[in-house]
Amino acid sequence: MRVVTLLSDFGLRDGYVAEMKGTILDLCPSAVITDISHDIERHNIPMGSFILETTVPYFPKDTIHVAVVDPGVGSDRRAIVIECEKASFVGPDNGLMARASEKLGLKAIYEIREEEFQRKPVSSTFHGRDIFVYTAGLLASGRRPEEVGPRVSRLETLDLSPPTLLGKRLDCHVLHVDVFGNVITDVGEKMVRKMPVKFGEGVEILSGVRKPQAQYVRSYHEVAVLSLYDSLPHFCCSKRGSVEHRYLLNPHTRLLQKPTCQRLICEN
Amino acid sequence: MRVVTLLSDFGLRDGYVAEMKGTILDLCPSAVITDISHDIERHNIPMGSFILETTVPYFPKDTIHVAVVDPGVGSDRRAIVIECEKASFVGPDNGLMARASEKLGLKAIYEIREEEFQRKPVSSTFHGRDIFVYTAGLLASGRRPEEVGPRVSRLETLDLSPPTLLGKRLDCHVLHVDVFGNVITDVGEKMVRKMPVKFGEGVEILSGVRKPQAQYVRSYHEVAVLSLYDSLPHFCCSKRGSVEHRYLLNPHTRLLQKPTCQRLICEN
Amino acid sequence: MRVVTLLSDFGLRDGYVAEMKGTILDLCPSAVITDISHDIERHNIPMGSFILETTVPYFPKDTIHVAVVDPGVGSDRRAIVIECEKASFVGPDNGLMARASEKLGLKAIYEIREEEFQRKPVSSTFHGRDIFVYTAGLLASGRRPEEVGPRVSRLETLDLSPPTLLGKRLDCHVLHVDVFGNVITDVGEKMVRKMPVKFGEGVEILSGVRKPQAQYVRSYHEVAVLSLYDSLPHFCCSKRGSVEHRYLLNPHTRLLQKPTCQRLICEN
Repeated sequence: MRVVTLLSDFGLRDGYVAEMKGTILDLCPSAVITDISHDIERHNIPMGSFILETTVPYFPKDTIHVAVVDPGVGSDRRAIVIECEKASFVGPDNGLMARASEKLGLKAIYEIREEEFQRKPVSSTFHGRDIFVYTAGLLASGRRPEEVGPRVSRLETLDLSPPTLLGKRLDCHVLHVDVFGNVITDVGEKMVRKMPVKFGEGVEILSGVRKPQAQYVRSYHEVAVLSLYDSLPHFCCSKRGSVEHRYLLNPHTRLLQKPTCQRLICEN
Repeated sequence: MRVVTLLSDFGLRDGYVAEMKGTILDLCPSAVITDISHDIERHNIPMGSFILETTVPYFPKDTIHVAVVDPGVGSDRRAIVIECEKASFVGPDNGLMARASEKLGLKAIYEIREEEFQRKPVSSTFHGRDIFVYTAGLLASGRRPEEVGPRVSRLETLDLSPPTLLGKRLDCHVLHVDVFGNVITDVGEKMVRKMPVKFGEGVEILSGVRKPQAQYVRSYHEVAVLSLYDSLPHFCCSKRGSVEHRYLLNPHTRLLQKPTCQRLICEN
Repeated sequence: MRVVTLLSDFGLRDGYVAEMKGTILDLCPSAVITDISHDIERHNIPMGSFILETTVPYFPKDTIHVAVVDPGVGSDRRAIVIECEKASFVGPDNGLMARASEKLGLKAIYEIREEEFQRKPVSSTFHGRDIFVYTAGLLASGRRPEEVGPRVSRLETLDLSPPTLLGKRLDCHVLHVDVFGNVITDVGEKMVRKMPVKFGEGVEILSGVRKPQAQYVRSYHEVAVLSLYDSLPHFCCSKRGSVEHRYLLNPHTRLLQKPTCQRLICEN
């Protein structure tokens, strides 16, 4: 019994996700299929990468994670299997799986080239079904990553500059705005800890001409606006009561924070 | 093999539900995980309670139901396991599981205190993952409710006055407006049967200054506006063709009905 | 172990789908339940039919497909089981399952009449739970289609005129507009191949007074507007960048295409 997870930007309204699940069950009837999310914004690789890397550590060892946010389907981007110490990944080589696979102990990368790991005829628009889950279904039934094709030395990474804390200035990106209105950036917990802001102190968020009041708190049970959302190793701006802020901070917004004056400057 | 159900207000777009599923599968690989709903309105405990109590009777004996609508996470509200004759419940002690657990034969309540039933470090904002499903995963793999912590004598209940039928006047609350536009109240089937309205008779709904025409019918295949929706033991106002009424009757709206004159008075 | 799939217009917000899953697991604990889609537009039988027929070929042999888009619930439309060479279908006899069951090798149709295949009391509004999945759960645990009731000779079909290619004029219907903005019609691949348009050629779509430019291409990785979406055996208009067109082409829109002048005429 192997767990196979699915992440995509296909949504659940159409039949695409079900076609992938049927394909897996047809190849490996004992597979336990679990959705991570199918509501990744269309072609938003950084968002998919974030949801993937924060979720996969909770799954059992040897889980097979299939991730399909694939604007380059039909082009010459590679289809790959990433073998990690704790799991395997199957999907396009476009940065989507890079951070998640590093987190789970990347061991080797293989390009899917062998014909028997592809359903024929391969659609030019739906590799999720004809290559990725087809390969995952075979892996779940006992085939080995090294059988799918030649070993590859390098993985494509996300096209985002890393966050920096230089003097009083923190420069980062918004990765995701979640259902609770948390604005999740690419600032990791370590960098958050280095900032001189203390729990309970007031801060100010500058978003264009708006200056909403904020407070740096630990839990959103307190009246929190700006908080360290500690269930994620990422710096979050959490907001209760109003979702107005969600429309100002879209994924990929660049955030500037000046921590010594307790200000988070948001420039859209 | 144990069935574990999940209900929450987390939505399916983020990775939170998948983190819970991964946690369960990691602790109990043979668990069969089934979603009840993750689209409960945020922090809407009465709606979550309604969806939970109407759904759980259909699941097999010994199912473990995890319910997480938890505005008090991080406060001192208790994390509990409710042992019932037909199932177990795991979640916050905030009224969410009270009606469902009564329906399935409440036997005992335990507070989750033992360290081994909590993933360390426990997040202050995501007890769904670090306490509730962690406990559920252990229960699914054979641990007993009485091992999680001390027995508790009292359960928090929903903060809603019960519906009353006094003379000609029925006073109730809207619990939920479903996908078909059914307006579901907390009036039970018994009270509905006591009302002198007969199937086929015309009624009038007063919602502020509007007075939509309605008819008291059994099935929405007939031209139904106001109906006894008999697949639920609740009084419903069903509406076809237009969803206009959904925007007038939000959850928690108070409804007043005067049955002898076949009127349903809706006061927002 | 039998796979049971579910398709409906119930959405996932309410508890209705979970009630169906609980019912199946109660009758057949080893059933593997997989969602096809629960976001079929309410009462839109052609859309449900399309999602069903394109999805079911990917599932394992002997899968039981339950489909519930059922505006006639409570009327005298029949509840049926369709036995096919590769799978079984359970649902209302209203055209929803006709094309899918033909595709999987229709063998026999049975009306669900026997009392033991219905949960008592049968709700007049929720046959999905009380008849369809109840029957499916029993079939999954080993009961035979011919046990559910008398054999039926004729299946209701979809109420849509078939697409025609007469001279320069192609006449078809929009079945579905998918999450990527693909406008999927009922023109099959064979008819598409007969059209004299070549990949790369420009075409023009006439939708009322608008005339968006389009191109007939194979993959949406190219700058595609009008394309043969070859992962589906249907003619699609695919569009990237803008979803404006989704609001013009609703399901059931009639499309007229004049292929020799490379025009797709869309009349709402």
